[in-house]
Amino acid sequence: MSRVRVAIAGATGYGGSNLFRMLLGHPEVEISYLGSQSYVGKRMQEVYPHLPEFDLACEAWDVDAVRDRADVFILALPHGLSMHSVPALLESGKRVIDFGADYRLRGPAAYPRWYGIEHASPELLEEAVYTIPELDRERIAGARLVACPGCYPTSALIPLAPFLRTHAIDTRRIIVDSKSGVSGAGRAAVKLEYHFPEANEDVCAYAVTEHRHTPEIEQEASRIAGTEVCISFTPHLIPMTRGIFTSIYADLTGSLATDQAVEILRDAYDQEPFVKVLGANALPHTKSTVGSNFIHVTARVDGRVNRLILLSALDNLGKGEASQAVQILNVMMGWPETTAIDHITVYP
Amino acid sequence: MSRVRVAIAGATGYGGSNLFRMLLGHPEVEISYLGSQSYVGKRMQEVYPHLPEFDLACEAWDVDAVRDRADVFILALPHGLSMHSVPALLESGKRVIDFGADYRLRGPAAYPRWYGIEHASPELLEEAVYTIPELDRERIAGARLVACPGCYPTSALIPLAPFLRTHAIDTRRIIVDSKSGVSGAGRAAVKLEYHFPEANEDVCAYAVTEHRHTPEIEQEASRIAGTEVCISFTPHLIPMTRGIFTSIYADLTGSLATDQAVEILRDAYDQEPFVKVLGANALPHTKSTVGSNFIHVTARVDGRVNRLILLSALDNLGKGEASQAVQILNVMMGWPETTAIDHITVYP
Amino acid sequence: MSRVRVAIAGATGYGGSNLFRMLLGHPEVEISYLGSQSYVGKRMQEVYPHLPEFDLACEAWDVDAVRDRADVFILALPHGLSMHSVPALLESGKRVIDFGADYRLRGPAAYPRWYGIEHASPELLEEAVYTIPELDRERIAGARLVACPGCYPTSALIPLAPFLRTHAIDTRRIIVDSKSGVSGAGRAAVKLEYHFPEANEDVCAYAVTEHRHTPEIEQEASRIAGTEVCISFTPHLIPMTRGIFTSIYADLTGSLATDQAVEILRDAYDQEPFVKVLGANALPHTKSTVGSNFIHVTARVDGRVNRLILLSALDNLGKGEASQAVQILNVMMGWPETTAIDHITVYP
Amino acid sequence: MSRVRVAIAGATGYGGSNLFRMLLGHPEVEISYLGSQSYVGKRMQEVYPHLPEFDLACEAWDVDAVRDRADVFILALPHGLSMHSVPALLESGKRVIDFGADYRLRGPAAYPRWYGIEHASPELLEEAVYTIPELDRERIAGARLVACPGCYPTSALIPLAPFLRTHAIDTRRIIVDSKSGVSGAGRAAVKLEYHFPEANEDVCAYAVTEHRHTPEIEQEASRIAGTEVCISFTPHLIPMTRGIFTSIYADLTGSLATDQAVEILRDAYDQEPFVKVLGANALPHTKSTVGSNFIHVTARVDGRVNRLILLSALDNLGKGEASQAVQILNVMMGWPETTAIDHITVYP
Repeated sequence: MSRVRVAIAGATGYGGSNLFRMLLGHPEVEISYLGSQSYVGKRMQEVYPHLPEFDLACEAWDVDAVRDRADVFILALPHGLSMHSVPALLESGKRVIDFGADYRLRGPAAYPRWYGIEHASPELLEEAVYTIPELDRERIAGARLVACPGCYPTSALIPLAPFLRTHAIDTRRIIVDSKSGVSGAGRAAVKLEYHFPEANEDVCAYAVTEHRHTPEIEQEASRIAGTEVCISFTPHLIPMTRGIFTSIYADLTGSLATDQAVEILRDAYDQEPFVKVLGANALPHTKSTVGSNFIHVTARVDGRVNRLILLSALDNLGKGEASQAVQILNVMMGWPETTAIDHITVYP
Repeated sequence: MSRVRVAIAGATGYGGSNLFRMLLGHPEVEISYLGSQSYVGKRMQEVYPHLPEFDLACEAWDVDAVRDRADVFILALPHGLSMHSVPALLESGKRVIDFGADYRLRGPAAYPRWYGIEHASPELLEEAVYTIPELDRERIAGARLVACPGCYPTSALIPLAPFLRTHAIDTRRIIVDSKSGVSGAGRAAVKLEYHFPEANEDVCAYAVTEHRHTPEIEQEASRIAGTEVCISFTPHLIPMTRGIFTSIYADLTGSLATDQAVEILRDAYDQEPFVKVLGANALPHTKSTVGSNFIHVTARVDGRVNRLILLSALDNLGKGEASQAVQILNVMMGWPETTAIDHITVYP
Repeated sequence: MSRVRVAIAGATGYGGSNLFRMLLGHPEVEISYLGSQSYVGKRMQEVYPHLPEFDLACEAWDVDAVRDRADVFILALPHGLSMHSVPALLESGKRVIDFGADYRLRGPAAYPRWYGIEHASPELLEEAVYTIPELDRERIAGARLVACPGCYPTSALIPLAPFLRTHAIDTRRIIVDSKSGVSGAGRAAVKLEYHFPEANEDVCAYAVTEHRHTPEIEQEASRIAGTEVCISFTPHLIPMTRGIFTSIYADLTGSLATDQAVEILRDAYDQEPFVKVLGANALPHTKSTVGSNFIHVTARVDGRVNRLILLSALDNLGKGEASQAVQILNVMMGWPETTAIDHITVYP
Repeated sequence: MSRVRVAIAGATGYGGSNLFRMLLGHPEVEISYLGSQSYVGKRMQEVYPHLPEFDLACEAWDVDAVRDRADVFILALPHGLSMHSVPALLESGKRVIDFGADYRLRGPAAYPRWYGIEHASPELLEEAVYTIPELDRERIAGARLVACPGCYPTSALIPLAPFLRTHAIDTRRIIVDSKSGVSGAGRAAVKLEYHFPEANEDVCAYAVTEHRHTPEIEQEASRIAGTEVCISFTPHLIPMTRGIFTSIYADLTGSLATDQAVEILRDAYDQEPFVKVLGANALPHTKSTVGSNFIHVTARVDGRVNRLILLSALDNLGKGEASQAVQILNVMMGWPETTAIDHITVYP
């Protein structure tokens, strides 16, 4: 049986190159196209000496020229570019997985507000599936167009979901405080703030009250809760390469003990191969997830103030991006969900 | 005029050695005693090759043997030790500045609960002054016994105070999420969790819902607000050496814009030499404070949810410990408050 | 056909736990015993939350009690322990791979000098095979007892070997300057020098002129060259977790250009799956090897002084320890050499 | 008595801004001009929030417009720019201290070879003084034009000098292996190789056999030795912000023990306020010098091969650049040499 041809647009970024490495080992996939803005004509190994030799060189992204070169297109493009290519791909009967934000938000009005652009193909927003496999894999199976959730939303929504579903928390007052390694900025973001001497030995908050992942988290949290959810989301940059740690604070609507909160997480995720629920004696560490598709989560109740504290750790380029995209591809195509996904953490 | 003789007990820890270095340059101070548990008989320069030569060797701490050797005693001892020495020192007419927790909490009942020990000199808790100079320097001036605030409480109370005083925020729902470098654990804390391969490239939360700085923050916040304040405090360990970044979330009781919130901070701290209030265009970075006694603070309002976000950055061994102790010493003794305090940040 | 039973003694160290993870995925291997000094009764997952569930708990190492529990014993024990266990294992017809130094040096006299101990089973030193697979895999195949080379020797010997064999360099004046991440010290080495605030943002040399890997490098280099080789070896500790970068300086005996030197490396290693020779336009980076069994090497000639400079980068827990041990196991047992070895680098 | 007016051109780089901070506290100096390419019209505090308020804004560098604005010009400009400004400054009777390479090399022919440019004012190369104060402060006193030594040369020449002077080492075979933090690349060097995710957790060598500091080191070493000295210099980039650690390997011409080698260093530098010679029981650490003007040095003899190993540690922005420039200014102007220089290390 022939393999499914997969194109990667934006293959030389951190997300794209990690995806490339994983798909090389995927038994159902043949990588048939590699797109790159900055490295046209180069092999992946010339850009990343750790990658194995591979026949194809990188090509400039041109949807018309490449639409027949693959069956599935995975787009790791800067925000605002996918929306111009996806309609043509779907018309050609292709399937699309988009790393970017272009199809994450339901309402076209959100794009001018949060991204400063008019959406170029708003008619597809309704069809596009945005979800984390663990939260609603049925919607991914068979979809034509899937928008991969961002790294921060993944880290927030997996621990929040079970409590949103049961209305255990006050949905209007949720606080999400995230701490991210610098690779989340991407390889192309060579800017002063990520210059090693500036970013090393420093912590800061950024995009306070206005980070673009806020509407994503609220949209999905609201869908899960069945009611409007309001989130204060504050991302922080910390001096490490990979990893996101998210601390969530929510007021409990009723009484709940730490053990019960942990149990709610366990009930939700016990069958999930990539979600590890830690009990009352352990707390998540990003180091435990580096290189893997795992998210580690736990819960604590601050009984003095009746507040739920949820903590999660993941690799922003793993469960936060590249390996979650492979997971989504597997679900979309009906393959075993763990196929070709690194199960391993490189520790320490 | 002769100098005031100052003893440092616990001189070879990170806090003590930074204090030693600063007091060496203090024109009013003669360091007359150095105490150390682990380095009895050693010179400071043998322990820390960067320190200058100095006549005294470290001696074991023995309050009866040393009470006549100094006029002011600065105690950088493990929690639970000062309480056994301070009564004798005060009886001898000495003044004491305590780095530890032994005289931070008003009620003796707090010690069994948060520190697991009975207080050995509870009669002094009433007299002991616990405050940050910027918040109430009058109480420090002339005091016999001052408990230095911890690094986390300093990072939380300075930004919070002006909003507590004016009842601008809901005092029962304040969330304090702090990110600390590893030097906060101290030099003696050579444990697996601070082993470089474990702590590097990792973030984690610790002591969730049960960190010992919680009652300190609540006690002082309540005093400032004139009403009971409830705090959820969650500290995080991040892979850097020096610095604490604190993010505070509080529901506004009325309407307030970001500019107004910044103005409130400016009004409170404009005359303070060590507090820098950043405006709407800048956010604090711990790197901007490394080696100095500065705290950088700012405020943002998340208008969508009417929530105040306060952000602060300081050096946990600077404003968070050693240089704040010098500041307290200066106020206590009636010397110019900035004497011998490093004004400089080593950047980058 | 039944799997070969493999015992890991010292399973909870960094080397042992990485080995455990890889052997879990080895199609020919059944892990039949896990030994640990510090975690008797614990599961691997309790020590390392990133590891998968596994039936066996750790047991104290007792050679008599466990000699029948496995066919192959991989010993990741502190230096000086293996020498007491190996004779009994070989008598029982077992095969042994030793991570430690006990069987690395040919002459028993070297042990008092470099390790301060008398060798307890010197009669086995002659039989024990010490080599890197790429340099002499024939000696490994079928051996009963193999001593794994240390991380530093591997980083030095692979680039040096082709030049030693052809007598292209002056063997009496070789300088090896290595830079290592802190995980090389091991997980059990919780000491002040590896305390995060001390090791972070610092570089130092250590064990100058007296590092124990010196005689290993000289012994193997001499064997390869067929003449006595003298090495000045200086290791340095740098603030990162994984990786060794080695810079080697050697005087050329004749004339050689950089291109020719690179070609000599290429000729030697072109067929090797785990050695990547970089050309005149690229230099090794440890980051390109993190998590993998790769070593990246290149050569430069400083024509002004007729000196050869060899540069190598590897992961001290990969090619420097755990994955090289799997490679050795594969060669020893006659299995395909790349079986169960991580080919992947986690980048960035 | 009026202060000497000092201009800083290139004030917003890492070197310039550290210099600015120190000169602010210099009792003999009035900073009368601040030049910057990228921040014209900005105050230093807008670029670096940790710096104090200061009246002057940054101005574009225009030698004709500013030549009357100061008595001494300190130029922290990219290589190749000073040579066009210095003649006019000297003609106007000004004194110049140049951070860059334009006046470091004696022979104009070296500039096309190592910097790819023809020298624009070669007639000044003879007059320009290049030296480290500790090695030849007489030449600095009263000079009109001083070229500050680079960070790497300072780290190599201070330990080497006493052994070069006495011909204790073979001058044709010296190897200098340096390990530098990333701030050495400067603030303006925002490039992929210094992007945090690339530089963090990585070591590499760069500019192998062709680094521009090679001719500087050889020129000064030759002057000191009175004979031609040949150096193989290999710089490495390591994942930290500040610090250079240099390891030097040289064959001894006669017999020498470690204690004697240390004694030679002690004899040379015992009276120097900024050179600390460590004995046989201690090794240099860059951390011990961060923020200070100190260099820590020691020596070891590898008796087996009769080789001298010299080790040094300094802060590349301290003794390697900004504070050494203040030291040079003090010597040039006849002020006490330690004036306004940070003596303190920020540790840890």
